[in-house]
Amino acid sequence: MTETELIQKLTAGLPGDSSVLIGPGDDCAVIEISGQKLLFKTDAIVEGIHFTNDTPPEKIGRKALARALSDIAAMAGTPTHALVTLGMCEEHKPIFVERIFLGLRDIATEHNVNIVGGETTTLPKLTLSISLLGTSLKPILRNGSQPGDALFVTGELGGSIIRHHLGFTPRIKEAHWLTKHFDLHAMIDLSDGLATDLRYLLDKNLGAEILTNALPVRCEARLLAKENPSGKTALLAALTDGEDYELLFTVAAKYAVALLDDWNLKFPETSLKCIGKITDKPGITLRDDKGIKPLTIHGYDHLQQS
Amino acid sequence: MTETELIQKLTAGLPGDSSVLIGPGDDCAVIEISGQKLLFKTDAIVEGIHFTNDTPPEKIGRKALARALSDIAAMAGTPTHALVTLGMCEEHKPIFVERIFLGLRDIATEHNVNIVGGETTTLPKLTLSISLLGTSLKPILRNGSQPGDALFVTGELGGSIIRHHLGFTPRIKEAHWLTKHFDLHAMIDLSDGLATDLRYLLDKNLGAEILTNALPVRCEARLLAKENPSGKTALLAALTDGEDYELLFTVAAKYAVALLDDWNLKFPETSLKCIGKITDKPGITLRDDKGIKPLTIHGYDHLQQS
Repeated sequence: MTETELIQKLTAGLPGDSSVLIGPGDDCAVIEISGQKLLFKTDAIVEGIHFTNDTPPEKIGRKALARALSDIAAMAGTPTHALVTLGMCEEHKPIFVERIFLGLRDIATEHNVNIVGGETTTLPKLTLSISLLGTSLKPILRNGSQPGDALFVTGELGGSIIRHHLGFTPRIKEAHWLTKHFDLHAMIDLSDGLATDLRYLLDKNLGAEILTNALPVRCEARLLAKENPSGKTALLAALTDGEDYELLFTVAAKYAVALLDDWNLKFPETSLKCIGKITDKPGITLRDDKGIKPLTIHGYDHLQQS
Repeated sequence: MTETELIQKLTAGLPGDSSVLIGPGDDCAVIEISGQKLLFKTDAIVEGIHFTNDTPPEKIGRKALARALSDIAAMAGTPTHALVTLGMCEEHKPIFVERIFLGLRDIATEHNVNIVGGETTTLPKLTLSISLLGTSLKPILRNGSQPGDALFVTGELGGSIIRHHLGFTPRIKEAHWLTKHFDLHAMIDLSDGLATDLRYLLDKNLGAEILTNALPVRCEARLLAKENPSGKTALLAALTDGEDYELLFTVAAKYAVALLDDWNLKFPETSLKCIGKITDKPGITLRDDKGIKPLTIHGYDHLQQS
């Protein structure tokens, strides 16, 4: 059972009233209180899974909040308030914990997020869990794609483990700009790899065709492939590595060229690629010069790997 | 350094704008979004600290949410939406996890709380962290007591470890009734023991006098004292045991009798005791038939005990 399946099973019978606009299963929950749509998200990182015991503590703090911010970005929201839960044990000195909070503070300040509280608890592995609130006038959901839609991805994919997973900037301003100027049909942030996360944009009647040559392969993915010729190819890494924290979204094909042109003027230093299209045939296919083949490799899933 | 001191130190330099009405240091954060005051709280329970490995999983789920609900009660709020983070390892079977969620579901339903999402992560000790949102027209804070105020406590104190900590009902309806009918000056829920938590109601110019004979000692605290004559007396247990999850609050002395009379009509099955008063002399004293003595024993603090 995957993490997503488990959460869906566990939360299926839970109570929910009309204030719950989007429950479990999207990047954030969407709730309505006093006419305001709020985004609500929790995300935890754990030593040995999301960082190592020699990761600089500032980067641990930064990553914890950045991951939750990326989920807010995926719904085109604006993050507002966060709570921090820190699980630690005796070996963690106060200066180490202070440095975690320095990293948290810096990225919170960058994104105008108020850290309004926290708690500490004793855990054998360092754990940092973030609860994050945000607002959104019109949240972009995972479902909503139409056959023929163009499929876009920001930034580059694969090889995140080398560096990107500790230093990425959540695509909040890009998501705001995209939703202000274009009618996005669906969006998700890539945390478990394109091959896995793309499936969340497809309901059972939809599929996708990926143009292999259009995939923006991160330099580090190419480097890793060169260093280890018997391991993943750079292309496979771009398809299946986790922790890209880039936006994957769909938009009607007729707007694709204008979107690319406007993006390149607005964000000249950030890649945006049209990597394929949504089809009315379930399943994901890869198209290159040699033809079309089905994509069967999934990306990373926390439970399946653990 | 206590947990409270650590959190205050860590969060001292964090960014906060005018939407943060109450930041770290009270039972919940209080924030304002679109003119609505929201309560925001996170709380985690961990195997070996808050429950044992033979605790029925339904009770683990119940306790996790009940603790956060008790913090909402302490601010006279109404809980609305929750997210659940479950840390577990391979030894935890799906049926065990499902039973945790049954316990969560039941108490969520009792209190009209929508569980709107969750995540699972791998941790060596079972951990359940709850993020909870609520609303409150007029949150009751920890500070606000005045010299001469009567000091009240709901329910009974001490010996929670026997049973109460897994089955308590958060005092939400009692807090609503209290704040609807009386002008409470300050309130907190007792999680770390009366002797510790009472200090949070006292700023540096205030003290409290506790009437020892008025303390509502829980039957289990007396039982534990009888079984172990060399351990804590029942009175000491009532003062220092943690996990009572009762409300401790202050109100102008002139309303004390009316409050007690009205309470006993409204909640005849739940104890409410006036256990002393707020003084203008810093420190806590105990008064009984033999005179007055200072209280020096603190209650439970997670970090000091770990």
